[in-house]
Amino acid sequence: MRVYLDCWPCFLRQALSAARRAGASPKLQRLILEETMAELRALSADATPPEMGERIHRLVRERAQSPDPYLDVKREATEQALALLPVLRAHVETADDPLRTAVRIAITGNIIDYGVAETFDLEATLERVLHAEAPIDDLPVLRQALGEVDEVLYLADNAGETLFDRVLIEALPVPVRYVVKAGPVLNDATREEAIAAGLDQVAEIIDTGCDAMGAPLALCSSAFRERFRRARLIIAKGQANYETLSGVDAPICFLLQAKCSVIAEDIGVAPGSVIIQASEVLRRY
Amino acid sequence: MRVYLDCWPCFLRQALSAARRAGASPKLQRLILEETMAELRALSADATPPEMGERIHRLVRERAQSPDPYLDVKREATEQALALLPVLRAHVETADDPLRTAVRIAITGNIIDYGVAETFDLEATLERVLHAEAPIDDLPVLRQALGEVDEVLYLADNAGETLFDRVLIEALPVPVRYVVKAGPVLNDATREEAIAAGLDQVAEIIDTGCDAMGAPLALCSSAFRERFRRARLIIAKGQANYETLSGVDAPICFLLQAKCSVIAEDIGVAPGSVIIQASEVLRRY
Repeated sequence: MRVYLDCWPCFLRQALSAARRAGASPKLQRLILEETMAELRALSADATPPEMGERIHRLVRERAQSPDPYLDVKREATEQALALLPVLRAHVETADDPLRTAVRIAITGNIIDYGVAETFDLEATLERVLHAEAPIDDLPVLRQALGEVDEVLYLADNAGETLFDRVLIEALPVPVRYVVKAGPVLNDATREEAIAAGLDQVAEIIDTGCDAMGAPLALCSSAFRERFRRARLIIAKGQANYETLSGVDAPICFLLQAKCSVIAEDIGVAPGSVIIQASEVLRRY
Repeated sequence: MRVYLDCWPCFLRQALSAARRAGASPKLQRLILEETMAELRALSADATPPEMGERIHRLVRERAQSPDPYLDVKREATEQALALLPVLRAHVETADDPLRTAVRIAITGNIIDYGVAETFDLEATLERVLHAEAPIDDLPVLRQALGEVDEVLYLADNAGETLFDRVLIEALPVPVRYVVKAGPVLNDATREEAIAAGLDQVAEIIDTGCDAMGAPLALCSSAFRERFRRARLIIAKGQANYETLSGVDAPICFLLQAKCSVIAEDIGVAPGSVIIQASEVLRRY
């Protein structure tokens, strides 16, 4: 998915929010906004939103000399989600269809996104996502694919969301490689946040080899690209993975909430929709 | 009130929305965003949000060669509000305190603001504003002032909102001069929209002498400035009048909803708050 003009105001908002989280002075905040505007003007027509997001967050980290402005909120999100873990597991244990419930729980965690909002109501989101009608619901495709593969490549998204992923991974019938970012960007999970959420107890943790948002293959390590190429089932969480991989031919099941109106319109659903979308390759299984 | 950095994303959003309303092609939309960013970079530190808004809307009108991009929505807003007029009047007629109710109705109309949102729910807003606790409620000051003056200078805001103003004007005990913009800007009322709402039946319609948002005195005509200087009671509707006049020494009662979080924080209230704020000069009456 390419950057729409509607994304421009949102990028400025994100840049300002990130600059403040990084402790930038008002003068530096203004400089960061000015540099963000220069980046927008120079952006190529086929750039994806995560590419632009990555530039903004790198700019903020460098200018504010703050290697990980979201460290505190990532820790808080993990703690908050850890406290919910027993409730989440109980939902799966008592479910008529544990896979359906576990998938919905993983999608619930996708609300934890500091690129979109500054606060989140996890309990309310859980209620909503568990019971929402999903306008795109390829759960049957995912269920069938899970019966045919011997492992899953699971592309993580944000810190805290990791715990919700863990509940899904615990419900999967095959081993999982859990892919995090190789370095901090926004509130995306790195190895540190994945381990804090205990993902090392349920999966092998690997990384994309870069600190880009989503999984822009050209920027990822060759080791990751090789894993990606060989994977027979990829679960990709969240907007950035969707935005960077929706045009890639691979057996992907995207799990996300269409949190912003631009991505919702691109997918053709209402904002806030629950999306379980199998790629064309996966549908052909 | 000066422009905050938080206003920058909002200005880009407004510029894009206005460009589309003006029928700009995607290429021209992008050019307009780029020029808006250049204006933001060049903005002086003491500029007010309406000053920047005015530049954006002038830019859009010129580049898209569309003298009044909001003409259609102004007409629709007037029609929608006209249909509500009997309900609004009935509220005042049956009120224990007609002035209080009429003031709340005038503030209800302030929701019609295409600078802040693209759609409005007038009925829901009416319910909310009629019954809301106003964190700043200088109605007693306004009531007393109305007993001491022999006319009111009433600074209008947006088309459609004019009808809500009309209900308040019908409840005032003294004659009113109703001040509109001299030319189109955003969805602000000009003489045309004031007459369509029947304001000529309840007030003398004059204008600011310019098409700036709010009432930046330096840009207004000397005739308007003279009226303003001589006025013993000024009712100023909406955010732009607040933003341009909150620092001016004059007997003003501001009536507005603090629709954006920046203005709400500047005033020190929650976003969405109902504001009935008398200036220092008015309080001394």
